[in-house]
Amino acid sequence: MALSNELVYNPLTEITAIKLVKKLSLFDENEVLTCREIGDGNLNLVFQIVNDQTNKSLIVKQALPYAKVVGESWPLSLNRAKIESDALQIFAKYVPQYVPKVFYSDDTLAVTIMEDLSHLQISRAGLISGKQYPLLSQHVGEFLAHILFYTSDFAIEPEKKKQLVKQFVNPDLCNITEDLVFTDPFFDHDTNDFEEGLRKEVEALWNDQAVKLEAAKLKKKFLTNSDALIHGDLHTGSIFADDATTKVIDPEFAFYGPLGFDLGQFVANLLLNALSLSEEKQGFLYDHIEKTWHVFETTFTKLWKKDSIEAFSKTEGYLQHVLTQTWQDAIGFAGCEVIRRTIGLAHVADLDGISNEQARLTAKRRALLLGRQLLLHQETLSPKDLKELVQKTV
Amino acid sequence: MALSNELVYNPLTEITAIKLVKKLSLFDENEVLTCREIGDGNLNLVFQIVNDQTNKSLIVKQALPYAKVVGESWPLSLNRAKIESDALQIFAKYVPQYVPKVFYSDDTLAVTIMEDLSHLQISRAGLISGKQYPLLSQHVGEFLAHILFYTSDFAIEPEKKKQLVKQFVNPDLCNITEDLVFTDPFFDHDTNDFEEGLRKEVEALWNDQAVKLEAAKLKKKFLTNSDALIHGDLHTGSIFADDATTKVIDPEFAFYGPLGFDLGQFVANLLLNALSLSEEKQGFLYDHIEKTWHVFETTFTKLWKKDSIEAFSKTEGYLQHVLTQTWQDAIGFAGCEVIRRTIGLAHVADLDGISNEQARLTAKRRALLLGRQLLLHQETLSPKDLKELVQKTV
Repeated sequence: MALSNELVYNPLTEITAIKLVKKLSLFDENEVLTCREIGDGNLNLVFQIVNDQTNKSLIVKQALPYAKVVGESWPLSLNRAKIESDALQIFAKYVPQYVPKVFYSDDTLAVTIMEDLSHLQISRAGLISGKQYPLLSQHVGEFLAHILFYTSDFAIEPEKKKQLVKQFVNPDLCNITEDLVFTDPFFDHDTNDFEEGLRKEVEALWNDQAVKLEAAKLKKKFLTNSDALIHGDLHTGSIFADDATTKVIDPEFAFYGPLGFDLGQFVANLLLNALSLSEEKQGFLYDHIEKTWHVFETTFTKLWKKDSIEAFSKTEGYLQHVLTQTWQDAIGFAGCEVIRRTIGLAHVADLDGISNEQARLTAKRRALLLGRQLLLHQETLSPKDLKELVQKTV
Repeated sequence: MALSNELVYNPLTEITAIKLVKKLSLFDENEVLTCREIGDGNLNLVFQIVNDQTNKSLIVKQALPYAKVVGESWPLSLNRAKIESDALQIFAKYVPQYVPKVFYSDDTLAVTIMEDLSHLQISRAGLISGKQYPLLSQHVGEFLAHILFYTSDFAIEPEKKKQLVKQFVNPDLCNITEDLVFTDPFFDHDTNDFEEGLRKEVEALWNDQAVKLEAAKLKKKFLTNSDALIHGDLHTGSIFADDATTKVIDPEFAFYGPLGFDLGQFVANLLLNALSLSEEKQGFLYDHIEKTWHVFETTFTKLWKKDSIEAFSKTEGYLQHVLTQTWQDAIGFAGCEVIRRTIGLAHVADLDGISNEQARLTAKRRALLLGRQLLLHQETLSPKDLKELVQKTV
């Protein structure tokens, strides 16, 4: 869908973004439009373009050729814009209700133009402000069951699946996860960022061979298991929500990866929020975790029974094996995520936003302990166990 | 390296094969050459071209656009010729002593021109005729340790590895294995081919949920684990040997797959040969199996310690975990291979060549029993246990 006269990548400005949407007839030539850059500015430009009279609006998202989080020195392939728009369009085949509509994409410009969701709130911010999003877990469970099942070998002919694996090879973005989630936090690496008050616990982690062994095995799964097209970055900052609606955004980290990864990231970020709350306020988060798994499990099972093309799909125990492995991996991936969000490069506001230093350090110490427990007990922790696990880290 | 004026694929003849090698200056224009088509004719044309005066010779191998084994109705991508020559050239970087030299390849013609190894014997035929190949296991163990280690994430930067995964996506040939090794033999499928005297055992297999569950899990590993560039078809018919030399040929099934697959196929084919021999003659085959694993394990360990780029490579227990998983998977893959070579589409001469019907049926019944045991006991069978396992299938 490239515009034939846009042959060279240039970062858009508020003015050129408006020109683009008009050229594409997404707005009429004579409409009066307002354009604001609203991105958090790490990896992308995000323009919101609004006709203030009709309230019609849309989002123009453009990838930048570097990660701003560490300055311009970390170059990133613009191909991630294509990965993102391709992934959104594949997800929309199965669960259009849970992703923004894509109106246009251009690989050269690294641009995706999509539905404006700014009437919703980023769920991390909402959770921090006390929102509970009653349908969040129902929706995320359904979202994951559909995208994972329908992009896996259980539902796609092997040749077609292998072409998708190729299409979604995503070295730059995977590398960020390989380093920042699975490697650096477990070593004395200069990307790490932690409060000096945690040094004792962090150094203990670096010397904990049993925990590092589990991290190594999970990293290997991330590097080598091409089960399904995963979102790749499904934390609560990648989900827009209100009480009735859930929209998963930003799948620029999408690639063919292990079934449990997205689930693990999501669960971890709910746990990180729980650690920021007093015990009596955490209950709805454990309910969300249990429900995410329950909905995932029942939905995946329903799709498997309805649409599996795998000859062994009726073999006794096979579906249960796949589900069990997915949950156990999710627990392990959650362990890595909880740890890296506490001491690695990219933190979460749930913990960093605790203003009292002692309370903040306590929450972070508990996060480290929790992450280690998740890594060490992947095979035995059920969704129901997580509440007790968090609460005994006091 | 394509010849610019060969833009269309045509099957070579003995005459055009000679023209090709002369045009490439692999022989002089005025040399008198003899050319014979010597392929077994399943998937490829194989021309041996010889100057009878100088004894200089080489092999011109050309992929056919279909599998002759099931008639022309099974089309196969010519891209496998590129896969084969690319794989041979990658293997040659690490273990040139164990693969034929490649002189030329052309993707359009689907041709690879390589070293003539006809002074050696296909090791399956040699084993059947009573040869023992004293260095076979040493060489195969070294071959596998090198190619698997050096093409894995343990040795290659993740971006480069992902490009290789892409380059070696091999849907047509993988599909043959997915169907004929991992699926059809476990179901009443029309590709199966077994003697009527085995029907009772075969039907029991089709109803054995525990065995089918293990086959399903192994098939999933084959479909989704991109650990390293594997040969993909490493049975004893893919290995040329004499008492001093071993050369692995035909990696047209190569792709990024699980570490244990090649090892499992090789071990399975030694076990199939053992089943064709009286008990007192089998000893060297078990020695070969133990030695293959021992050499693989020590060589892989040495390379890991010397050249691993993985941050966790020094983490206690990680190398051992990788090795243990590789062996356990190999046992499982060996189980699938033993079964499919007995009742699936592609048999082995080791068993089919037993002329006495009762002896042949007994050997095949034992193979089925052995295959099931391998599948059910992947986690406990050590290399030393295989002798007893075979011998108690009587």
